[in-house]
Amino acid sequence: MRKKAVVLLSGGLDSATCCAIARSHGFEIHALSFDYGQRHSTELAAAKRVAKSFSVKNHLTIKIDKSVLAGSSLTSKKPVPKKRSLKKIGSEIPSTYVPARNTIFLSYAVAYAEIIGSRDIFIGVNALDYSGYPDCRPLYIAAFEKMANLATKAGVEGIRIKIHAPLINLTKAQIIRRGKKLGVDYGITHSCYDPAPSGLACGACDSCLLRKKGFEQAGVKDPTRYIKKDGHGDTENTK
Amino acid sequence: MRKKAVVLLSGGLDSATCCAIARSHGFEIHALSFDYGQRHSTELAAAKRVAKSFSVKNHLTIKIDKSVLAGSSLTSKKPVPKKRSLKKIGSEIPSTYVPARNTIFLSYAVAYAEIIGSRDIFIGVNALDYSGYPDCRPLYIAAFEKMANLATKAGVEGIRIKIHAPLINLTKAQIIRRGKKLGVDYGITHSCYDPAPSGLACGACDSCLLRKKGFEQAGVKDPTRYIKKDGHGDTENTK
Repeated sequence: MRKKAVVLLSGGLDSATCCAIARSHGFEIHALSFDYGQRHSTELAAAKRVAKSFSVKNHLTIKIDKSVLAGSSLTSKKPVPKKRSLKKIGSEIPSTYVPARNTIFLSYAVAYAEIIGSRDIFIGVNALDYSGYPDCRPLYIAAFEKMANLATKAGVEGIRIKIHAPLINLTKAQIIRRGKKLGVDYGITHSCYDPAPSGLACGACDSCLLRKKGFEQAGVKDPTRYIKKDGHGDTENTK
Repeated sequence: MRKKAVVLLSGGLDSATCCAIARSHGFEIHALSFDYGQRHSTELAAAKRVAKSFSVKNHLTIKIDKSVLAGSSLTSKKPVPKKRSLKKIGSEIPSTYVPARNTIFLSYAVAYAEIIGSRDIFIGVNALDYSGYPDCRPLYIAAFEKMANLATKAGVEGIRIKIHAPLINLTKAQIIRRGKKLGVDYGITHSCYDPAPSGLACGACDSCLLRKKGFEQAGVKDPTRYIKKDGHGDTENTK
């Protein structure tokens, strides 16, 4: 019987790659997505597409009570920052920060892992080409793993929970190259924080800018469909 | 302006006492309760009574997706263990263990604290007269606090989150004496894991047994309403 892994699947480029890596290690994939009132809820549809493309064993979308994840520009009507310089992105914590988001997601993953008998949790955080969120850093992941092993029956019984963050020290370009080798179809993923109602990417939020730079640097054609010219030299692509 | 505290309020004896302690320190109380499919959901009504009795500033009941907290005898039709010896209780992890429960609850508390500008989270865990859950131990609480300070914007900015567990080294009798001094009305709290549909306590689950022993040892009249004689020398009380 294959070992089970719980994979956090947002529907973005990183989590899709992370899922491909977990699969390449031979794990049976149990994916978790979260509906937390994100304005880019189109990513949940992307998560379903990604789960399907990987033929995951199981994919749950968990509803998170919105009253505790309010206040971010991702979960409210506050404007999402646009066209920031790439140098600025990651150097400070932006308004798109959602308090304790990865902590809540990983906590559910720990519970779910214990229920299905998995000891391996995969999360696609990275701390290089990232938005500057504190809960994407290696120190945080290590502290979470330590806590999780003290929190659980399995941990007490000596069966260690491992939080795998295989992208944490990769650039976006490295992530994309890795994913391409593993057969990830990035055309079905979604990264934009502020998509149009049609689902097309804005091309100007931090997440779009990092994604574009990644494809450019990887020398891989960007399959993303952007809504319009945005002053960064990219025009609408159709896949 | 008074400092705000986020208090996890289950409606049980411990969390009511913990809430009283937070209030005695001068905090403005923001209480969080969780509806996670617990069979003793009557405790949510108790949480409301306790919140009201303390005139808390705010009380949210958060719904937790049940698919990830299944499998415990508290969240399924599995029988709750009854009439275990007091020596056995706490010496092993029982079937009432809910995977990662306190981790999920505390994660929500961290998110909520950050949103309302609180740095103080209170949780009524104790590791002496307890059911043996790993996520009630001092080591766990310390690891969670460390993780939370790495996870959050506030933590990164040097504003430390403190997880207060003021009951952690107290016996149940000490907790009850402390609460009585602070004016807690234990008659409105609920501890039983397996109450009758009427809400009366079974008198025989681990939680009832620990509660009874606590009142006996504290020399305080037990206001709990039990459903019947249970072989432990207690009969139905009416408050």
